Amino acid sequence: MVESVETAGAASGVFITLEGGDGSGKTTQSELLASWLGEQGRTVLRTREPGGTEVGVEIREIVLHHRGHIAARAEALLYAADRAHHIETAVRPALARGEVVIQDRYIDSSVAYQGAGRVLGGEEVRQLSLWATEGLLPDLTVLLDLDETVARGRLDAAEKRFDRLEAEKGAFHARVREAFLALAAAEPERFLVVDAALPVDEIAALIRARVAALLD
Amino acid sequence: MVESVETAGAASGVFITLEGGDGSGKTTQSELLASWLGEQGRTVLRTREPGGTEVGVEIREIVLHHRGHIAARAEALLYAADRAHHIETAVRPALARGEVVIQDRYIDSSVAYQGAGRVLGGEEVRQLSLWATEGLLPDLTVLLDLDETVARGRLDAAEKRFDRLEAEKGAFHARVREAFLALAAAEPERFLVVDAALPVDEIAALIRARVAALLD
Repeated sequence: MVESVETAGAASGVFITLEGGDGSGKTTQSELLASWLGEQGRTVLRTREPGGTEVGVEIREIVLHHRGHIAARAEALLYAADRAHHIETAVRPALARGEVVIQDRYIDSSVAYQGAGRVLGGEEVRQLSLWATEGLLPDLTVLLDLDETVARGRLDAAEKRFDRLEAEKGAFHARVREAFLALAAAEPERFLVVDAALPVDEIAALIRARVAALLD
Repeated sequence: MVESVETAGAASGVFITLEGGDGSGKTTQSELLASWLGEQGRTVLRTREPGGTEVGVEIREIVLHHRGHIAARAEALLYAADRAHHIETAVRPALARGEVVIQDRYIDSSVAYQGAGRVLGGEEVRQLSLWATEGLLPDLTVLLDLDETVARGRLDAAEKRFDRLEAEKGAFHARVREAFLALAAAEPERFLVVDAALPVDEIAALIRARVAALLD
């Protein structure tokens, strides 16, 4: 369904996405990067999905607060609608103005989480997102990679419990992580994979180095 | 994005859609057909999109009542989400119970109207709908074909006016009609094309004959 795949590089702005599990430090790194870019004199738009626009908020209401079942494909299409609107009305205009857009989660999260949930295929969800955004891919995607097994192991040792639900959640997060790493391996030029267990400042420096190269 | 295209014939029910411009008589023919099928002892579900389900009503609220611009792809994805939910939660269960589903407008309307509007391509919209519905196509699509030029010509003669807006509307409806006829020509086995200018009873008889053959 995609007519043409272009990167944001076609415009004068730069499109950066942050990916990784909850608690991997995306918000902190987004703030640090935005602050550094500001010091370099760049205008920055920090944004996220879903809910990045008014229409997005309304769509999110349906997905989160509808009582009863929503068909899996309907849910995927609702998220894609939010993305289509957000990219067309917020991200592309900012890129056209030459700004740097830093977005918390994008197409790779959709693919990794849907693929790991095993209701819809990751590749189908990717095609849907590409259609929704007219093929907009980030110039750079930072993957904050966290070994949840290690994190979880520590937690479990501390809490002295490990029930079946926790085990299932652990298996799900392990699949999400694998999916993210596979996406990064498939597009090494777009991705920067960073060990999220490193000190915050060290991670920030690694990201800045890559972004600086991109801005040159 | 479509894994497999199947017709509703795979289940025990029968899926019939009615297509054609506004005022072509879809509602009247749907009522007459449902009533006749009832006399034959068949259980009938009459339905429509958008708004056929609770989620559909909420989606329709966004599309119709949101103030300001909605991105074209976002709107198409919202309609596709309504369709996905409606087909999965209302149409497929009825077909699985062996009922006859009569639906006012479906995939062919999306293709014809979007194609005629020339914002998105008809084929793209068709692929989106097929993904949303897991490839569900009707067993029979009745196209109530109305020559709007004739109808309009009569009206204009009566009203003695023909401004530019009317001319544009006329051109749009002519494109929609052409698109419907092209779809029917591409799938002659699925479509029954009826001249909507015929008397109501005559049209009903033509539809009954085709449906009777389908039920045998």
